Amino acid sequence: MNNFTYYNPTKIYFGKDTIKNIGRELREHGIRKVLLVCGRQSIFSTGVYDRVSASLVGWHVDFVRFSGVQSNPVLSKVQEGIQLGRKEEVDAVLAVGGGSVFDSAKVIAAGVKHEGDVWDLFTGQAKIEDALPIFGVLTLSATGSEMNGNAVITKAEENKKWGIGSRHLYPRVSIIDPEFQAYLSARDTVNGAVDIMSHVFELYFDGSKNVELMQEYSEAIIRTVMKNVKILLTNPSDYEARAQIAWAATLALNNSNGTGRRGGDWAAHDIEHSVSAFYNVAHGAGLAVVTPAWMRYVYKEDPKTFARFAEKIFGITTGPQEEKTLQAIEQLINFFREIGAPVTLKELGVKYEDLEKMAGNAVQQRPLGKLKKLQKEDVLAIYKMAYE
Amino acid sequence: MNNFTYYNPTKIYFGKDTIKNIGRELREHGIRKVLLVCGRQSIFSTGVYDRVSASLVGWHVDFVRFSGVQSNPVLSKVQEGIQLGRKEEVDAVLAVGGGSVFDSAKVIAAGVKHEGDVWDLFTGQAKIEDALPIFGVLTLSATGSEMNGNAVITKAEENKKWGIGSRHLYPRVSIIDPEFQAYLSARDTVNGAVDIMSHVFELYFDGSKNVELMQEYSEAIIRTVMKNVKILLTNPSDYEARAQIAWAATLALNNSNGTGRRGGDWAAHDIEHSVSAFYNVAHGAGLAVVTPAWMRYVYKEDPKTFARFAEKIFGITTGPQEEKTLQAIEQLINFFREIGAPVTLKELGVKYEDLEKMAGNAVQQRPLGKLKKLQKEDVLAIYKMAYE
Repeated sequence: MNNFTYYNPTKIYFGKDTIKNIGRELREHGIRKVLLVCGRQSIFSTGVYDRVSASLVGWHVDFVRFSGVQSNPVLSKVQEGIQLGRKEEVDAVLAVGGGSVFDSAKVIAAGVKHEGDVWDLFTGQAKIEDALPIFGVLTLSATGSEMNGNAVITKAEENKKWGIGSRHLYPRVSIIDPEFQAYLSARDTVNGAVDIMSHVFELYFDGSKNVELMQEYSEAIIRTVMKNVKILLTNPSDYEARAQIAWAATLALNNSNGTGRRGGDWAAHDIEHSVSAFYNVAHGAGLAVVTPAWMRYVYKEDPKTFARFAEKIFGITTGPQEEKTLQAIEQLINFFREIGAPVTLKELGVKYEDLEKMAGNAVQQRPLGKLKKLQKEDVLAIYKMAYE
Repeated sequence: MNNFTYYNPTKIYFGKDTIKNIGRELREHGIRKVLLVCGRQSIFSTGVYDRVSASLVGWHVDFVRFSGVQSNPVLSKVQEGIQLGRKEEVDAVLAVGGGSVFDSAKVIAAGVKHEGDVWDLFTGQAKIEDALPIFGVLTLSATGSEMNGNAVITKAEENKKWGIGSRHLYPRVSIIDPEFQAYLSARDTVNGAVDIMSHVFELYFDGSKNVELMQEYSEAIIRTVMKNVKILLTNPSDYEARAQIAWAATLALNNSNGTGRRGGDWAAHDIEHSVSAFYNVAHGAGLAVVTPAWMRYVYKEDPKTFARFAEKIFGITTGPQEEKTLQAIEQLINFFREIGAPVTLKELGVKYEDLEKMAGNAVQQRPLGKLKKLQKEDVLAIYKMAYE
C-alpha cells in the first residue's frame, strides 16, 4: 500500500427533501450573496430551482442567477461567470445542476479570486491560491464533482478539455436528493452510469499493489452501478436504484476508494477528453467507447487484476487469465450496448481522418496513463480499435 | 436507503515515516502549546515519542506531557488532564497512543472548554458546545477514534462505561504509521482485530434496508481483517498486513460504511461495556465473547442478512437460511478461538453471580439495540449464553 493523505471536508446531505437545507447552510457559513450557477432547462422544469430559491429567500440569502452552462462546459462561459461574480460582489458560488455546472462553478470560484487569466490555472502558469466558498445542489450523479476538488473545462477554440484540482475547490456543502434524478432521460442516466464505472476503472487498473480492500470496495461500486442502471431503464423513478447510483457516483471519486493507490491511471479519461474536445459528445458516451479499447490495449501489463475483474464483475471463473480477460472486455461491451451506450467512435459521429489529430491532441501535455505510458501512436491505436 | 448527513473533516496521514508531519500541522493550525496525552510505556520504547517530540521541537510547538492513560480509560484520569490543560493554558490536545489515549484526549479537549463537571456531557445534563482542537498520532488501530467524533470513558466508582459523540471531537489531523504497530503484542493485535470486526457487525446487522453497497463494503472490511490478522500472528512485522488492518480500522468507524443505514445496532458494544465496566478486560476480548452470543439471540429478526453473512464471509452457500447462520456463528467462534481470542465470559474471569448485576447496569440508560430491543432479561440471557 502506498502512503497517502486523505482529507475530504465536504459535508453531504443525502436523501429526500434535503434541498431545503441549502439556505441555512449558506447562512451558517456567513454567506449573504451567492452566484447561482445553473444550466438551461431541467432545474426549472423539475422544481429544483423553486426549492433552492425558496430556501435562499427563506434564509435571506441574496442570489444572482448565472444560467446556460452546457455539458462539456466551456471556458468562455466560465469567464462570463467570473465577470458577473466580481461585478455582483458575491460571497460564494452555488452550483445547481450536474457535473458541468459544478465544474463551472468551481472554476468561477477560483477565477474570481485569481488576478490573471483563469486558463493559467489549467496550464500550470499559475496556482490556485484561493477560491470563493463553493456550495452545491446536485441533479445528475455522475462526475463526483460534488465531493472532490476537481474540475474539467474545455477551451473550445484550442480543442483543449483539461482538468484542475485543488483543496480550495472542495464544495463546503453538497446536497444530493436522488428523487429529482427521476426526471433524467435514459441517455443521461446511462452516460452517468458509464462515467461512474469509468472512474472506478481508472483507480482499479492503475497497477497498485496491496490494495485488496480498495479493490473489493471498487468492485462493490461497479456491481452496484451495473445492477441499478438496469433497474432504472425499466423504472426511471425507482428511488432506491437512483439513491444507490447517486451515492456510488460520489464514492467513486471522492478519493475514498483511491486510498493507498498510485493515484489512478486516467488514460481512458484523457483519451475520451480528446474526443469530446473535438465532437460534442457526452463524456459518458465517449468513455463507453474508449474504455474497452483501452483495456484491450493494456491488459497485458497487469494480467492478474484484469483476470480478477473478469471473475468479480462478470463471474468468469474458468479458463486461463488472458481468455477470462478478453471475455470480460467483450461482456463489458455487451453490457454497454445492452444499456444503450454507444460502443464505437463511428456511432459517435467521429470521422476516421480525425483520429490522428485527436491522438496528437490527447498527449499534448504529457504521455498518458500509469499502468502503461501511452504516446501518440498508442492513443491512435486505441482510437482505431474503438472505431467500429 | 435512509437519508443521511456525512461530514468527516479529519485529515489523515497514512503510511511510513508520516509522524514527522505532526509539528508542521500543529503550526499551520496556529497551535503553540499542546497537552501531549499518552499511555505509560509503549510509545517510549518504540521510538514514537522521540519522533513526535522531535517534530514538535523542530516546529517550535511547546508541549506538556500527560502520561499514564490506561486501557478502559477512566474519568478520574481525564479530570486530571483537564486540570493540567487549564493550568498550562494549552491551545490543543495531542493524543499519542491507541484508542484509550484518543478517547481521553477528546474528553479532555471538551472538558477544558466546559465549565461544569465533564461527566455531565455523558449523562446528557450538558451538551458539548466546544472543545480544544484535537490532533493525534495513532499507535494501535482498533477503535477508529482517530477519524470520528466519539469517545468512551469509564466512571469507575459507578461501573459506568459510557460514550459521547460530537462534531467538536473529530481530530483535525490524525497520523497513522503502521510500521510502529509491528511492536504490538499478539494479544493487542487480536483484540484490535475483533474490535474492528465488531464495529462493522454493528452496522451490518442493524436491520437497514436497501444498503447493498454498504453491505458489500462492510464485507470487504471484515474479510480484510480476518485475513490479515492471521498473517500478523505468524509475522507481526508484516507491513502490508499491518497497513491493511490499520486502514480497515479507520474505515470501519469513520461512518463511511454507515451511510444510509439506521445508525448501527450497538447492542453488542453496550453489552460488552458492562463487562469491562466491572472487570478490567480489553474491549476486543469482551466483544469476541459477547458478539456471537448476541448473534444467536437476535438472528431471527433478520434471517436474510445473517444468511448473507454466512455466505459472504464464510462461503457457506448451501442449506436453509437458519442452518447457514448457525454454522456461520459457530465458524466465527472458531475463528476467534483460532486467533487466540477468548470466547466465554468464564475465560475472562467473570463470576456467574455478577451476570445479573452486569445486565442491569447495561440497560440503565435505555434498552439496547435496534435490530431487536433488548431489556435487562434479554441481556442476561445473552450473558448466560456467553458464559461457558
